[in-house]
Amino acid sequence: MGAVTAVTDELMDALKALLGERLSTSAAVREQHGKDVSFHEGHPPDAVAFAETTEEVAEIVRLCAAHKTPIVPFGTGTSLEGHISALKGGVCIDLGRMNSIIEVNGEDLDCRVQAGVTRKQLNEYLRDTGLFFPIDPGADASLGGMAATRASGTNAVRYGTMRENVLGLTVVTADGRIIRTGGRARKSSAGYDLTRLFVGSEGTLGVITEVQLRLHGIPEAISAAVCPFETLEGAVNTVILTIQSGIPVARIELLDEVQMGACSEYSDLGYPALPTLFFEFHGTEAGVKEQAERVAELASEFGGRDFQWATQQEDRTRLWQARHDAYWAAKALKPGSGGWATDVCVPISRLAECIMETKRDIEESGLLAPLVGHVGDGNFHLVYLLAEGDEEEYRRASAHNDRMVMRAIAMGGTCTGEHGVGYGKIPFLQAEHGEAVALMRQIKQALDPDGIMNPGKVLPA
Amino acid sequence: MGAVTAVTDELMDALKALLGERLSTSAAVREQHGKDVSFHEGHPPDAVAFAETTEEVAEIVRLCAAHKTPIVPFGTGTSLEGHISALKGGVCIDLGRMNSIIEVNGEDLDCRVQAGVTRKQLNEYLRDTGLFFPIDPGADASLGGMAATRASGTNAVRYGTMRENVLGLTVVTADGRIIRTGGRARKSSAGYDLTRLFVGSEGTLGVITEVQLRLHGIPEAISAAVCPFETLEGAVNTVILTIQSGIPVARIELLDEVQMGACSEYSDLGYPALPTLFFEFHGTEAGVKEQAERVAELASEFGGRDFQWATQQEDRTRLWQARHDAYWAAKALKPGSGGWATDVCVPISRLAECIMETKRDIEESGLLAPLVGHVGDGNFHLVYLLAEGDEEEYRRASAHNDRMVMRAIAMGGTCTGEHGVGYGKIPFLQAEHGEAVALMRQIKQALDPDGIMNPGKVLPA
Repeated sequence: MGAVTAVTDELMDALKALLGERLSTSAAVREQHGKDVSFHEGHPPDAVAFAETTEEVAEIVRLCAAHKTPIVPFGTGTSLEGHISALKGGVCIDLGRMNSIIEVNGEDLDCRVQAGVTRKQLNEYLRDTGLFFPIDPGADASLGGMAATRASGTNAVRYGTMRENVLGLTVVTADGRIIRTGGRARKSSAGYDLTRLFVGSEGTLGVITEVQLRLHGIPEAISAAVCPFETLEGAVNTVILTIQSGIPVARIELLDEVQMGACSEYSDLGYPALPTLFFEFHGTEAGVKEQAERVAELASEFGGRDFQWATQQEDRTRLWQARHDAYWAAKALKPGSGGWATDVCVPISRLAECIMETKRDIEESGLLAPLVGHVGDGNFHLVYLLAEGDEEEYRRASAHNDRMVMRAIAMGGTCTGEHGVGYGKIPFLQAEHGEAVALMRQIKQALDPDGIMNPGKVLPA
Repeated sequence: MGAVTAVTDELMDALKALLGERLSTSAAVREQHGKDVSFHEGHPPDAVAFAETTEEVAEIVRLCAAHKTPIVPFGTGTSLEGHISALKGGVCIDLGRMNSIIEVNGEDLDCRVQAGVTRKQLNEYLRDTGLFFPIDPGADASLGGMAATRASGTNAVRYGTMRENVLGLTVVTADGRIIRTGGRARKSSAGYDLTRLFVGSEGTLGVITEVQLRLHGIPEAISAAVCPFETLEGAVNTVILTIQSGIPVARIELLDEVQMGACSEYSDLGYPALPTLFFEFHGTEAGVKEQAERVAELASEFGGRDFQWATQQEDRTRLWQARHDAYWAAKALKPGSGGWATDVCVPISRLAECIMETKRDIEESGLLAPLVGHVGDGNFHLVYLLAEGDEEEYRRASAHNDRMVMRAIAMGGTCTGEHGVGYGKIPFLQAEHGEAVALMRQIKQALDPDGIMNPGKVLPA
């Protein structure tokens, strides 16, 4: 691919003429746009463009393309693998001002939003419609960014990921054309699945400016449950059997004893520091009761004790807030530390083995790393708690992460279940996909021949 | 794209050396491989290669690629839009002998099969495992062909289409490389979604030789129901409300009064010739009962009468057999006629309107065209019953189909819900996808620069 070029004066003048005050080169703005919430090094872009329309994004891309200058799309900056670092400089396109909800089709259970709308904003908007959008990564991320990274979260076991919930997109291509992919029909066999190609492409093939999303009806009944286990194996085996039995749990989250101790302390939950499963059941009144009873039965077979129901909204909210605060609770275990969130996913039959080996390795590595998992999907995260500036500890964590990722891949799993590749997971892509990486590169070359779209991400150099 | 070349003597010799008796140039074999079950004209390939391994497919592709000779992959030949017609001659690769079930992972609810395994063969194999594969197009198609056309069927409303149920693929690329896409983890954010790119690409980007599939547990309880309606609107509105209420029906099929009359006669069902819905409910004993009661209540609001349950396996089998025989029942309405199956899909809010306008147009066009639909997805089919050799009637049907497809597209729908593009739906692709078609062409150009993979399919010339 051709070498990309830094922002020239000529390009800067053209962008200023287009955007006026909405083009920023201030150091603070550039720094903030070049660093996500991960441990990966940030790289500020040369300029930040605050776009307001798809047409404006297309114009910015055309100008940058004419100068072969890199483009980095930016939503909320909450990525976890260095996705937004401007590794080769260039122009960051901030889509945060494109935050309109374009339409909600209640009858068809779908909606169309601009890329900068966040998941919480959408759910707030939907509040009185009886509908909701289930995908919930930890952060209040933008829906464009979530589509770009193929995000998921705690509800994926029931509702799928962004792969299953994006019906269509508006995308600005690397040469500044505006295309619409997909459609509103529930299914279609009409041509190549461009929607799915752009979902998970992390801004390397084009800039997503609008997203058509599948919505879901708020279930008639919701209940939650918490169940501590004697052993981690017992908890994981309960998960495996729940999934294999086809019980349609909406959420099934694992916290290991370290994380549960931290959460219980941080959120004053009063639960013991034991490996614990958090469940949520969606359905009719009778259906939810039936699901919970079945799971309680399975749990008791595997050393689950004291399966506690929470049918009241406030109890549920408190519980899930504690789960969502897991990262902060973990950090509180080691004041002043930074948290490095990892992400692997394996076939569920290998989950117990993968987690147990990983835990042994944590111990042998002398690391503090609580574990949380969207275990219904075979997906789990560690948070390495690392002392600021302790290079040696960082290297130990990094080596542990390498081993964990390669272990997951060897078990038929993936180097990233939901965080994406960014530049942090690039070293593992070849091990996971082999020759298929060459095919990904052919597609990149075809759609972005000058390599200006978020260079240095997803594909190995 | 470069002009493709017919099979030369040199290529034929090389293929014979590779395949021996498994290369056929007999007129009968070539004819049979160049014509699917649609009304579209067949074009025999120059030769048919019966491959037995992925490596052999790769070798055939490499030989053809060296001669720039077209390749047409062939599963069971049951496509409906001319997919397998060798429009520019070349070599048909018949994958029917690649019919091994490679592995079934009961714990992970997945399996891997060679492309020539058919859906019924797989379900027969799974019979004692408690698992099943739900995707059921009318024909006993090969799973490779079903992946290639993004097929679905009556269960899609609950279980999704091939898009959702293919976890990974082995594909031979246009230059004869063997790649594996996807993986066995339930979710992944690791790179471009090549699996979804090949699903629905109809052999135009590569040859699918193996398919990793998601399996599902056979539900504890299954019940079926039949409900005739006073009016077609009543039936369709019952469907819409059922879907919008989030009732997780497994199947919800519509037969209009013409089709129901035909089926009742053909399969001796004893039901009146009225617009009728067929339902199937999957779940626990209690869950299935609850679903059926709710749907019965909705149906009664819209003029549904005599909602009949069938919980016994033999009653259900008889009912669904009648549904699956709809095509033959339709043909029996006009002895000696040929049947042309159409396929459109619209957002469910537009389904009633689309069906009613289409029905009016059938009447005005003086056609006999029973209607069946996977209406839970907004998808429906007509079968035009056309007298052999009646060119004028064929033209009337063709004009009607054009109007129906454009109506569906104008309503936000698609020109094909599940049959694919082949060459029959190419004229509508631009209307549906606009500028996105140019992007599809860029991908085609990148992955098949010489245009040898199933030329003349999917993309407009």
